[in-house]
Amino acid sequence: MKKKRIQAAIIIIGNEILSGRTQDTNTSTLANWLNSIGVQISEVSIIPDVENKIVDSLNNLRKFNDYVFTTGGIGPTHDDITAQSVAKAFGLKYEIHKEAFKILETYYKPGEFNEGRQKMVWMPKDAELILNPTSGAPGFNVDNVFCLPGVPSILKSMLGGLKNKIVGGEPIISFTISLRTVESEIASSLTKVQDQNKDVEIGSYPFFHAGKLGVSIVIRSESQSKINVCNSQILEFVKQKKIEIVER
Amino acid sequence: MKKKRIQAAIIIIGNEILSGRTQDTNTSTLANWLNSIGVQISEVSIIPDVENKIVDSLNNLRKFNDYVFTTGGIGPTHDDITAQSVAKAFGLKYEIHKEAFKILETYYKPGEFNEGRQKMVWMPKDAELILNPTSGAPGFNVDNVFCLPGVPSILKSMLGGLKNKIVGGEPIISFTISLRTVESEIASSLTKVQDQNKDVEIGSYPFFHAGKLGVSIVIRSESQSKINVCNSQILEFVKQKKIEIVER
Repeated sequence: MKKKRIQAAIIIIGNEILSGRTQDTNTSTLANWLNSIGVQISEVSIIPDVENKIVDSLNNLRKFNDYVFTTGGIGPTHDDITAQSVAKAFGLKYEIHKEAFKILETYYKPGEFNEGRQKMVWMPKDAELILNPTSGAPGFNVDNVFCLPGVPSILKSMLGGLKNKIVGGEPIISFTISLRTVESEIASSLTKVQDQNKDVEIGSYPFFHAGKLGVSIVIRSESQSKINVCNSQILEFVKQKKIEIVER
Repeated sequence: MKKKRIQAAIIIIGNEILSGRTQDTNTSTLANWLNSIGVQISEVSIIPDVENKIVDSLNNLRKFNDYVFTTGGIGPTHDDITAQSVAKAFGLKYEIHKEAFKILETYYKPGEFNEGRQKMVWMPKDAELILNPTSGAPGFNVDNVFCLPGVPSILKSMLGGLKNKIVGGEPIISFTISLRTVESEIASSLTKVQDQNKDVEIGSYPFFHAGKLGVSIVIRSESQSKINVCNSQILEFVKQKKIEIVER
């Protein structure tokens, strides 16, 4: 029996990505991790620190995805508005989260749990916490929406704590064949392979490595045997065309 | 008189970004370039090589933005479906572009302009070409939608040819003050500055550099004098709190 594909969307919240000041790396971190546990990314939306943009994105994407992950906007400053936006999207009260309050009260030295830090314990009512082993302040989830920080090292350290909360499908297997050729030489043969294997995702990516051009063909599917079928068909035309197979 | 803000959206097309295999860098390339000519990015959408996703994104974003840029999906293989999707989004015929055909016929050696390469001259009817000084195959624009390749080096080489096609507004000036502090120490003071300067974008970004924590405050506006006002107000609380200003 074929299992349902599990899908997630990612919302990257932050003016600093849209201005080009900061290079987003959280998308690939989350994508690699989610793929490894059988969750496919349906789309990624990068939006500014603007409440109605966040609310609209959340309400649109949470309907059509099993999970939505947000990154950014859960710190102590005025431009951190993710928690209040999630509360608004779900029609929940935005209030002090007692468990988060206790965590940070213990985390900081006496007198250091100031107004700015206390902002980080304001969350949508009944949010579930996502523990933060790096810097104390937890993330949270409401229903299928999981809110993580924007700082890449902190985000990475929190993924372990998410494992029990995210139920994936069949892991997606990815197999790559790299060839010493250009895309146009193999395009029509590759189209035939794709047409004969419609439920397998076949991608073609040119590369330039160590001064030489090449193409990586990436085959993705939950089924190893389907990948094997595509692989044989590809190796067949590769042999016919006398194309060199290379390591990348 | 205040000029209208010019806004653009970016659509990154490609399964390889969503699978985590490839780290997108085109967003920051485009964002930096567009900001430098006075165009702000309203949002970025990363979507798979799926026609209806591309059509929906295009038709949604081109209405609310002065410009839309797409990257990816204009090569010779079966997974390159951007041009046909743009044609569909605009209700235009998808056909051989005569000028593009001539360019590639001249670019390739006799006999090398094969079927795969000929796919790259299929475009929406009456598309305007964006020349490609690196690898021949042009991008194109239809109305306010500009289609660029996904390979970062090729994309970069094509921006020069776009300068006369994109009319920006006032360039957005960005000014950064980096402080040896943590966000929670300055959060309430910074909120006051933002409240007093509502039309200036003030962002706060923690960093960890050379073993030390710090915060960069980024002030963005079309008006240098507004930036100066914010800067003075920030320097005032920085002095009061005896926070060290650092170079980054």
